[in-house]
Amino acid sequence: MENFTYHNPTRIHFGRGQIAQVDRELPANARVLLLAGGGSIKQNGVYAQVKAALGARPVFEFFGVEANPDYDTLMRAVAVCRAEKVDWILAVGGGSVLDGSKFVAAAVDFVGEPWDIVAKRAKIERALPIGTVLTLPATGSEANGAAVISRRTIKEKLAFIHPLVFPRFSVLDPETTFSLPARQVANGIGDAFCHVMEQYLTFPAHGAIQDRFAESVLRVLIDEGPKTLANPRDYDARANLVWAATWALNNAIGMGVPQDWASHMIGHELTALHGIDHARTLAIVLPSLMQVQRAPKREKLLQYAARVWDLRAGSEDARIDAAIAATRKFYETLGLQTRLADYDVKADTTASEVARRLASKGMAQLGERGDITPAVVEKILRAAA
Amino acid sequence: MENFTYHNPTRIHFGRGQIAQVDRELPANARVLLLAGGGSIKQNGVYAQVKAALGARPVFEFFGVEANPDYDTLMRAVAVCRAEKVDWILAVGGGSVLDGSKFVAAAVDFVGEPWDIVAKRAKIERALPIGTVLTLPATGSEANGAAVISRRTIKEKLAFIHPLVFPRFSVLDPETTFSLPARQVANGIGDAFCHVMEQYLTFPAHGAIQDRFAESVLRVLIDEGPKTLANPRDYDARANLVWAATWALNNAIGMGVPQDWASHMIGHELTALHGIDHARTLAIVLPSLMQVQRAPKREKLLQYAARVWDLRAGSEDARIDAAIAATRKFYETLGLQTRLADYDVKADTTASEVARRLASKGMAQLGERGDITPAVVEKILRAAA
Repeated sequence: MENFTYHNPTRIHFGRGQIAQVDRELPANARVLLLAGGGSIKQNGVYAQVKAALGARPVFEFFGVEANPDYDTLMRAVAVCRAEKVDWILAVGGGSVLDGSKFVAAAVDFVGEPWDIVAKRAKIERALPIGTVLTLPATGSEANGAAVISRRTIKEKLAFIHPLVFPRFSVLDPETTFSLPARQVANGIGDAFCHVMEQYLTFPAHGAIQDRFAESVLRVLIDEGPKTLANPRDYDARANLVWAATWALNNAIGMGVPQDWASHMIGHELTALHGIDHARTLAIVLPSLMQVQRAPKREKLLQYAARVWDLRAGSEDARIDAAIAATRKFYETLGLQTRLADYDVKADTTASEVARRLASKGMAQLGERGDITPAVVEKILRAAA
Repeated sequence: MENFTYHNPTRIHFGRGQIAQVDRELPANARVLLLAGGGSIKQNGVYAQVKAALGARPVFEFFGVEANPDYDTLMRAVAVCRAEKVDWILAVGGGSVLDGSKFVAAAVDFVGEPWDIVAKRAKIERALPIGTVLTLPATGSEANGAAVISRRTIKEKLAFIHPLVFPRFSVLDPETTFSLPARQVANGIGDAFCHVMEQYLTFPAHGAIQDRFAESVLRVLIDEGPKTLANPRDYDARANLVWAATWALNNAIGMGVPQDWASHMIGHELTALHGIDHARTLAIVLPSLMQVQRAPKREKLLQYAARVWDLRAGSEDARIDAAIAATRKFYETLGLQTRLADYDVKADTTASEVARRLASKGMAQLGERGDITPAVVEKILRAAA
């Protein structure tokens, strides 16, 4: 196991009616930016609960943060914060709104061009405190310091990570997610599954707790994912999905062990080029990457086969084949197609274009061993035809 | 799953050489109480590393915190803090030193009799900040807000829990534990195992992540415990034990699910009456409690049998029998005897004495269902003859 520092300071309020905790978390005199997406929170009762909790505090509402939150949108929210002397951000929504709140929090007092925060990893000295009310289990943004920000005018999508943008608190009320479209729930399950795989399916590193926790989250997603899709108002199934998605990316399982993240990097390019939902890009890339990288990932593939899918009989290669097939079938069962052709994308041209784009960004050595070169990226995408 | 609030703010520095982080964690002008046990840290190099990290800061050393840290000892440390205007506590040692530091931190500015903090759960308004350097994996005290304090003059041993006494940071360097006596390592494994069981072996509550994480920690202790006892300088085995012991009691696995803790409450009395090591009291009580409570714990016993011990064949009763036997054997393999007779304690008289003592403290309805009455306590201890 490698050395690590683990720190996750976010206070999680989990369960029914927990939005009321917002009142206890925010200072009585806080000046609050309420950041949200397209407005679904006004239909499902979340907005009313949030407003009740905020009480008489001055609240400046900013709706309209889109999926894959955009720099230009977020900079308008930054302008509101600066004009209104906002000192707390309350992000109400899914991963995009939460990610967006992290950029806004870091940008408000940033001296210079805030895009540098993501493009050049410019140093952040401070950030506004963030609270979140999560309405879509998927990204883990409610309990980590990471965000992915897009800038459509220059076709970019980049990540940044900073301890200062960990939410101070997050409210996770599974009932607020009951009204989500099935497509978004399925995307969330698929996204969380891949988050675990990126931190787990690498090479053995003697992280016994990390491995077993990762396998735990995978099994819970496999057990509870289809259950919550079939019966969206089953509280316990949905609660288990919500809590699993948080643990998939709150840093615990990735401490002291190698990480991959090539599926995400390749997937981001598919979203940028073809507008495919983030989770669906992962459904395309992950099974194919497992196949192409089966040699370097051999030991963990066998462990994954045995512990996650109970595949313990047959030859090693047969077990690996079966585990990859099970992974593909899991995504397909969620309704997430795993072939580029399912999205009317031609593998040949896209494979070379994605490889070229990644290389041009300095991402020519992806994966836990740095062996996913542009040629391997091409191979992965051709195998996902 | 029940509602919960989860917050674990402790920053963990894990790995070789991480004691150096103490310098970064403490303010340059901190006035530090270095709290320690009997002095083994001067033999194993930990003291020298800690002193190097503390540099020129004024440090007031207090050695002599005993196993089952005593109120009278700790009040002498409180006096040092008050006299020297200490503003940080650095606890260097095992669970007893760490637990002791929590009492000292809370007592320094407490108005009134500090024993009330444990005896009457008196309200704590503030506590000195605590950092820890853990040298014995066992109690989880490095990442929780709990402490167990003894007061020998009145034969008491009581717990208190408060968010203010969470360590701000903890250093976990597995190498600092290489020189521990095998008996202490074995005790730590047995203690951590029981911590998990107290939060897991109750009744089903739809905590899918909590259950699987608990089973993960148990399996890691079963796999790595004997390995690290057989080869104390195997870094990876020891690192896995250290990290498993932290997760056994850092609150994560107990969120939103029922908890038992009867084995601990009964065990504390065996320590108070007969001076048996804490972990060994658990080795005595736990298997016997599993047997006596097999009806109310039936569903979780079957899950435990299947997922932790791979016992999936045979009748339900046979699987439960086998799981209890495996648990007993696990403790015996560690060298922790599981029968009162092994400690020259007469079951009959002790059983009624422990039941009486617990009832006199208001603990007449222990366990996750409150069904462990004094009569059941007696039955458990007689079955452990």
